[in-house]
Amino acid sequence: MNGPEIERLIQLLGRLPGLGPRSARRVALHLLKKRETLMQPLGTALADAARAIRACSTCGNLDTIDPCSICADPNRDQGLICVVEDVGDLWAMERGKIFRGLYHVLGGSLSALDGIGPDELNIAALVKRVAAGGIREVIVATNATVDGQTTAHYLAERLGNSDVPLTRLAHGVPVGGELDWLDDGTLATALKARRAL
Amino acid sequence: MNGPEIERLIQLLGRLPGLGPRSARRVALHLLKKRETLMQPLGTALADAARAIRACSTCGNLDTIDPCSICADPNRDQGLICVVEDVGDLWAMERGKIFRGLYHVLGGSLSALDGIGPDELNIAALVKRVAAGGIREVIVATNATVDGQTTAHYLAERLGNSDVPLTRLAHGVPVGGELDWLDDGTLATALKARRAL
Repeated sequence: MNGPEIERLIQLLGRLPGLGPRSARRVALHLLKKRETLMQPLGTALADAARAIRACSTCGNLDTIDPCSICADPNRDQGLICVVEDVGDLWAMERGKIFRGLYHVLGGSLSALDGIGPDELNIAALVKRVAAGGIREVIVATNATVDGQTTAHYLAERLGNSDVPLTRLAHGVPVGGELDWLDDGTLATALKARRAL
Repeated sequence: MNGPEIERLIQLLGRLPGLGPRSARRVALHLLKKRETLMQPLGTALADAARAIRACSTCGNLDTIDPCSICADPNRDQGLICVVEDVGDLWAMERGKIFRGLYHVLGGSLSALDGIGPDELNIAALVKRVAAGGIREVIVATNATVDGQTTAHYLAERLGNSDVPLTRLAHGVPVGGELDWLDDGTLATALKARRAL
């Protein structure tokens, strides 16, 4: 019904997370109305990023340079590694400006259901990084889901015979959270892990 | 925090309708993970469409050719013009496969609040098309919103001294509803039951 260019655009937009066929049409129409100010710049930005961005061979972060700007930053603590499931988790940590060490991106979590085993994740490189020495602590910051916890336990096993201490993010009441809205599991963990006031 | 390529991509994605900063990051990450299969094709599709698509000089539809493939189709009834607010409304009519005439896209509706008067819309061209003769009927398919109805009444005034009968979509379109959100069955019923304006 539309030209093949529009149909192809709608079809590709519909494959983005959070967009269905209807919202893809809406986005396509919006883009077609803002050809100069949005559509062409976005096309260029996509092509530029697709060409320039690569995975860091050290930590798995996405950047235009390899090693990535985090691994290459001399001001960051080279003795700390924070292990995250995904680049999105790394971005979340960086947004908070709370961590000044290095990262290691696993690329997912162990999942029997999805058939993701240790070989599908970036784990061997982490073991090698730790074995190479110079690391004072490995902070496991996988998600607090079943798969994330499984991955954390697996990492503890794999890295257990090194001398480097392994830690994980604390569980507890989220800042600003109300007890009444928390699940029992979180409350129980928070109670068990209580600290001196 | 990320490279400028990623930041620019996230910023542009955040300007798409329905995407905020968080979902723009999510989409960017998804694209970066599917560089070959989604990101590059989407970049190309955007650039192709931005280059190739133009507004039809006759009806205002968006297409790669001018006049557009609907205006140029000899199998369509050249004596019928369906006036719609937006290309999205035209797409909705075409999806329903219920209309085999031509269109006229106004590019919006009259709106005192938004400062959109008759000169901002593609109305003069419609008056000229009707005056040129060969038109048996003009079907006004503006939205059933206040602005859409105002636009319909204004069109009736402007086209009132021509001999061409003006019709509008029948009730059945829910008051306050927009064409793009209707099911095909409702649209078909409304088209069949159109009445004199």
